[in-house]
Amino acid sequence: MELLKIIANIPLFNGLTEPQLAELAMIVTDQQFKRGVTIFAEGDRGVGFYILIAGQVKIYKMSMDGKEQTLHIFGPGEPFAEAAVFTGKSYPAYADTMQDSRVLFIPREAFVALIGKNPALAMNMLGALSQRLKKFAGMIEALSLKEVPGRLAAHLLLLSGQQGGDEFTLNIGKAQLASILGTIPETLSRIFKKLSEGSYIEVQGAKIRIVDREGLERLASGEEKL
Amino acid sequence: MELLKIIANIPLFNGLTEPQLAELAMIVTDQQFKRGVTIFAEGDRGVGFYILIAGQVKIYKMSMDGKEQTLHIFGPGEPFAEAAVFTGKSYPAYADTMQDSRVLFIPREAFVALIGKNPALAMNMLGALSQRLKKFAGMIEALSLKEVPGRLAAHLLLLSGQQGGDEFTLNIGKAQLASILGTIPETLSRIFKKLSEGSYIEVQGAKIRIVDREGLERLASGEEKL
Repeated sequence: MELLKIIANIPLFNGLTEPQLAELAMIVTDQQFKRGVTIFAEGDRGVGFYILIAGQVKIYKMSMDGKEQTLHIFGPGEPFAEAAVFTGKSYPAYADTMQDSRVLFIPREAFVALIGKNPALAMNMLGALSQRLKKFAGMIEALSLKEVPGRLAAHLLLLSGQQGGDEFTLNIGKAQLASILGTIPETLSRIFKKLSEGSYIEVQGAKIRIVDREGLERLASGEEKL
Repeated sequence: MELLKIIANIPLFNGLTEPQLAELAMIVTDQQFKRGVTIFAEGDRGVGFYILIAGQVKIYKMSMDGKEQTLHIFGPGEPFAEAAVFTGKSYPAYADTMQDSRVLFIPREAFVALIGKNPALAMNMLGALSQRLKKFAGMIEALSLKEVPGRLAAHLLLLSGQQGGDEFTLNIGKAQLASILGTIPETLSRIFKKLSEGSYIEVQGAKIRIVDREGLERLASGEEKL
């Protein structure tokens, strides 16, 4: 029963109904590891994914000269290796316990079989992940709208300088530009739209024309806010 | 063929293989709406979800006195209503086109049947969503680590004042506190850990003891960074 309660509180399984949680609990195993144990190694077949219940787990890669590069340190409640295991890949890095730890292990084969038998379980997980993703996108927008318009303005002025004029072409994709500026494509689109509506620039596909250079300069310097 | 290409470029379907994309394309319909058309109304049965290909769609609720409250404006590439439809709920709001728009419609029943027949499709979608979620969580951490430690310090000083002493109890859950401070639970945990390691506070479950009040005050005022 305790296991069921733990599973019900994991965000990844937030969308599941009680009967679905009970079915899931049947394939989950509860495992304990001492501190300093390697749970899986990079390149091992991804036989299942994990949820950390207690303790701490370090995810790392090994460089050519044998140095560890820590990618992430997970705490209680966080799943790990699930993205690789869902897509059927091998483990992309090492996982070592940094403290005595308790994990739930969900074997891939049994999980795939469960979804085949019960597609609503997958639907509910997709629903919960989508909802969380929207919430996260909203937070990134709220956090990055303060600084990204200024960074974008600076970037546009730079491109205009490089390409010598008020009209120039964006030479990278929107996803890549969003990542350079520290935001996501959805928010970048909204900023471009605001810059157009505010008559700072005109946008036509990848072509940009600067309409109000001084306005862009004020945005870039932080004197003016969008 | 064109439809296949469009579907392949939608982040929600990023993890799918070519044969899976082809199977998905069989159940998708390509729809055009004039500007100002209601695609679905709040409370309608959630028969399927949408992906906006071109144009603009407004998601809104209607208040008791008939006023529109816009929740979100979607641009090309963004899915809408998928979280509700995945979990089998009715549409939670209205969707109106704000420009002539082109959408892909994915009917729920056919989609569930597809997953039942082909669980790997759901696994790959779960994998892509999980990966995106991790990326977003990393961005929120990067964006919020600058300001959240200061806000948390201010909040702890406030609680200490209210409860009259250096020792007090956090009276709300971590998820709720994270949301108040503008971050996510994962990042909040990391900040708590840093505050403990830096000997600003001691944490034991929900009990907090302030060790270095002046340090917290410097964090809260922005004089000191974590």
